Amino acid sequence: MKVVIVGGVAGGASAAARIRRLDETAEIIVFERTGYVSYANCGLPYFVGGVITDPGALTLQTPESFLRRFRVDMRVHHEVEAINPDLKTVTVRNLETGEVFDEPYDKLLLSPGAKPTVPRLAGVDGKRVFTLRTVEDTFAMRNFVVEKAPKSAVVAGGGFIGLEVAENLCEMGVEVTIVQRPKQVLAPLDADMACQLHALLRSHGIGLKLGSSVAGFEERDGKVSTLLEGEEPLVSDMVVLAIGVTPDTAIAQAAGLEMGPKGSIVVNDRMETSVPDIYAVGDAVQVVDAVTGLDALVPLAGPANKQGRIAADNICGGYSYYRGSQRSSVIKLFNMTAATTGINEKLAQAAGIDYEKVVLSPANHAGYYPGGKVMTCKILYERGSLRLLGAQIVGYEGVDKRIDVLATAIFAGLNAVDLKDLDLAYAPPYSSAKDPVNMAGFMIENIEEGRVKQFHWHDVADLPRDGSVTLLDARTPAEYARGCAEGFVNIPLDELRGRLDEIPLDKPLYVMCQSGLRSYLACCILAQNGYDCYNFSGGYRFYNMVTSDLLAADQAHPCGADK
Amino acid sequence: MKVVIVGGVAGGASAAARIRRLDETAEIIVFERTGYVSYANCGLPYFVGGVITDPGALTLQTPESFLRRFRVDMRVHHEVEAINPDLKTVTVRNLETGEVFDEPYDKLLLSPGAKPTVPRLAGVDGKRVFTLRTVEDTFAMRNFVVEKAPKSAVVAGGGFIGLEVAENLCEMGVEVTIVQRPKQVLAPLDADMACQLHALLRSHGIGLKLGSSVAGFEERDGKVSTLLEGEEPLVSDMVVLAIGVTPDTAIAQAAGLEMGPKGSIVVNDRMETSVPDIYAVGDAVQVVDAVTGLDALVPLAGPANKQGRIAADNICGGYSYYRGSQRSSVIKLFNMTAATTGINEKLAQAAGIDYEKVVLSPANHAGYYPGGKVMTCKILYERGSLRLLGAQIVGYEGVDKRIDVLATAIFAGLNAVDLKDLDLAYAPPYSSAKDPVNMAGFMIENIEEGRVKQFHWHDVADLPRDGSVTLLDARTPAEYARGCAEGFVNIPLDELRGRLDEIPLDKPLYVMCQSGLRSYLACCILAQNGYDCYNFSGGYRFYNMVTSDLLAADQAHPCGADK
Repeated sequence: MKVVIVGGVAGGASAAARIRRLDETAEIIVFERTGYVSYANCGLPYFVGGVITDPGALTLQTPESFLRRFRVDMRVHHEVEAINPDLKTVTVRNLETGEVFDEPYDKLLLSPGAKPTVPRLAGVDGKRVFTLRTVEDTFAMRNFVVEKAPKSAVVAGGGFIGLEVAENLCEMGVEVTIVQRPKQVLAPLDADMACQLHALLRSHGIGLKLGSSVAGFEERDGKVSTLLEGEEPLVSDMVVLAIGVTPDTAIAQAAGLEMGPKGSIVVNDRMETSVPDIYAVGDAVQVVDAVTGLDALVPLAGPANKQGRIAADNICGGYSYYRGSQRSSVIKLFNMTAATTGINEKLAQAAGIDYEKVVLSPANHAGYYPGGKVMTCKILYERGSLRLLGAQIVGYEGVDKRIDVLATAIFAGLNAVDLKDLDLAYAPPYSSAKDPVNMAGFMIENIEEGRVKQFHWHDVADLPRDGSVTLLDARTPAEYARGCAEGFVNIPLDELRGRLDEIPLDKPLYVMCQSGLRSYLACCILAQNGYDCYNFSGGYRFYNMVTSDLLAADQAHPCGADK
Repeated sequence: MKVVIVGGVAGGASAAARIRRLDETAEIIVFERTGYVSYANCGLPYFVGGVITDPGALTLQTPESFLRRFRVDMRVHHEVEAINPDLKTVTVRNLETGEVFDEPYDKLLLSPGAKPTVPRLAGVDGKRVFTLRTVEDTFAMRNFVVEKAPKSAVVAGGGFIGLEVAENLCEMGVEVTIVQRPKQVLAPLDADMACQLHALLRSHGIGLKLGSSVAGFEERDGKVSTLLEGEEPLVSDMVVLAIGVTPDTAIAQAAGLEMGPKGSIVVNDRMETSVPDIYAVGDAVQVVDAVTGLDALVPLAGPANKQGRIAADNICGGYSYYRGSQRSSVIKLFNMTAATTGINEKLAQAAGIDYEKVVLSPANHAGYYPGGKVMTCKILYERGSLRLLGAQIVGYEGVDKRIDVLATAIFAGLNAVDLKDLDLAYAPPYSSAKDPVNMAGFMIENIEEGRVKQFHWHDVADLPRDGSVTLLDARTPAEYARGCAEGFVNIPLDELRGRLDEIPLDKPLYVMCQSGLRSYLACCILAQNGYDCYNFSGGYRFYNMVTSDLLAADQAHPCGADK
């Protein structure tokens, strides 16, 4: 059997190694356009910033090491220009010699990845405008920041790469402004969860121009102006384009493979394309969203590596299948961690799923043990079935743990109330006797058993302030004095039972506290005393976070990365 | 409804608060023998060591705060001396006044906990012999170590409390010797996993006397001699007894409740005892092992708190049930973390379960990102069904995360091969594109699909060295030169294909490398070339860890904590 693989990173490299493990006799050729194989894509931003200092660390595997260990013929600087399914060949160009040749295959695996989306804008090819995909890109950007010591940078795009590059440049002392059209960074989060990252970025001096559209670039006098639609340009020493990625699939389309949205390759769960003996994996393929069952593009390293192994199994005559992508992701941003799994509210709404949500602010470990930090968790589940849909967590230590626990729970099809019974490992430095994930389960059970009704931050503005409802803040007077939601009156929880006569029984009652716990306790008391009451989800802490971010966005500096 | 609760910590306090949330009108009285309620049991060793400095942090809740918030009548220094089920009363002694009275109940919840096991030995009541259960014990021990500045301590018992106390004393400069009868610390681990902790303890100068039995104590000249059976005594400035805990259930037994092993109270899954209207929770009750279905005692805080909430639900007329304990646990020991979930080999063998295991040594995050550390994971699953049975992990950062992911997988009934498909969140600071848990799934799949056969460290000594089998070490010559298992000959993996003629085809072949990965790759090559080959589980790294520990145990210092 002769297997040809297009692309020697992530999915392609995983597949090549697995095919060899399964089949000592297969002939395996990998064509890789760049000069590097099996490199550390996800580490590239950290090389730019000098967190990773050894270029060898990015490129542990080489064509030589792959040949020695796996007898895989890794041909770098070789670009596959065409697939010829009828002939079962690919047309390849040796980028060093210019030579073009046809290479036959029995099985073909496409792992071409996705390329940075580069809009057709004036000046986008300028010397000070960078993208980050390959090792070569990385060295170029690293050399620029070391040699030219830029003082300012515009990062277009606030996704994973954009944020990681922004952090790395910021840590080097570069003044960074992030520009993007959406009004929030990190699309896998809902806006009310992303706001914590906005505050973090601002606290590090990173400018946020959200809701702005880049119209082009102009280089002049060693500077580059990022032109914005309807706004003053941003002048900086460099620009990083990180507005997203696009499947790099022109050859697949030209060969007549069935294509999905954004130029993705359609595959079945065995990673087979529409054309026999051609498989495809990684950022280039359309996958099934494991939660919604809808088609999706999820360009992440974990799925790419898993898919590579699955394609290899099937290429070698086995039967392996991909169960769909759950979109689990995590990002370090300065000292914070943001992580997601499953779907967020935006995706649930788009899929027409009737969902409920809980928001909580647990500490990562026992409060009495030093160093505990609060995280913000949002968990979505389907009304009726109680099926877990997704989770988003923003905080510090322990965020990645809880998202992986929730990812496992979603994978296993646990329902949202099951979370209360998870038997997780507890010791004071790591958790609480009731882990944050357990707490979410308790909250969901209380909602689903009708013990408490919720209202959310987006409901607050619409609550009548005409006396037809009662708005109650159950915190201490000191907390209340430091800030409260408009129109909420203060009765501390511990005084509530003695002051029920101050609260009209015939009006709906909306209760807020700092985290949502005391207002829940207040609702328990009030409901049993005949009140129709609603508990504020996430507490004033969350409310203040979201509303402060909206305010900060309005007051964002008008223009100019060079202030 | 009048509810009486015996014990105001963990399960009892959880239940009291939950009952109030569910029922504003219930009368709730809690009798607590000590002077403190709802205190931080699991934090006590850290107060001894000064990691937690504020005594108030251990005792955040007070009888007053419980009364204010929950209208729960928490009576400290009140000991329940008898239960009178026929009268539905308990007989209570006010330890401050000596007054004895009967208190009626409609529902009774027993949450008496477990007390440190104190063997009936001479000198066990001495002033320099401490146990650690209550806040009072903690203050006493803290005062002793601050005021007397002991230079040496014997800790009898190497379980959670013993190890945490040993660490805390060691960090204060006290020379510590741990003595216990079993030949390993931390029974939830198998011996081959505990050995890493032995090495850690020794590296911190903590003496280990494993396999030794304490016969008594003698105090003299401001020192205490720990007498050992058949060995020289250990002389030290203090002794901490932490050899285990025993359910504190004399009153339950006297009242005729059905009792289980070690004086535990038998309860059903609703936490009901054998006597109507009496419930019991926490360290005092017998639970069902969620993996084996067998009865078990699992004195841990997580289950106690969950059970308290469940009992409360049922006391208030709801229907909640405990799903059994999965024994998930974690401990910080210096800079290391050891964690378990489900059952270990000892328990699997005792339960007669036919299991297979994998051992792996993954890094907690991408190797190219700074700070990665290797952890040792052992995962057990049932042969045939592939049901996950348990996991043990010893390492550094990320251990607690993986154990909680595996705990969730076991809870959800995932099979062992499912681990490969878990969609976990990846970014270089947190994980690898193939997470350690995924890797375990891949390994298990390879075993179960017959692609590789294993042998284990305990098989190595029995392998014939008479030439009837081939013993192969697939590491580099440099690695091999630094140490190898007896009789293994070196052919580096990358030379293997070219040197097959050196290996007789008609003899079984046993292959070892450093971590188990290269030997697996070697086995892939060899098996496809017709060899009957076996991959060493865990690699030389694991083998060396286990065998070095056995050697160190033999060479342990003969006697005397004061060397």
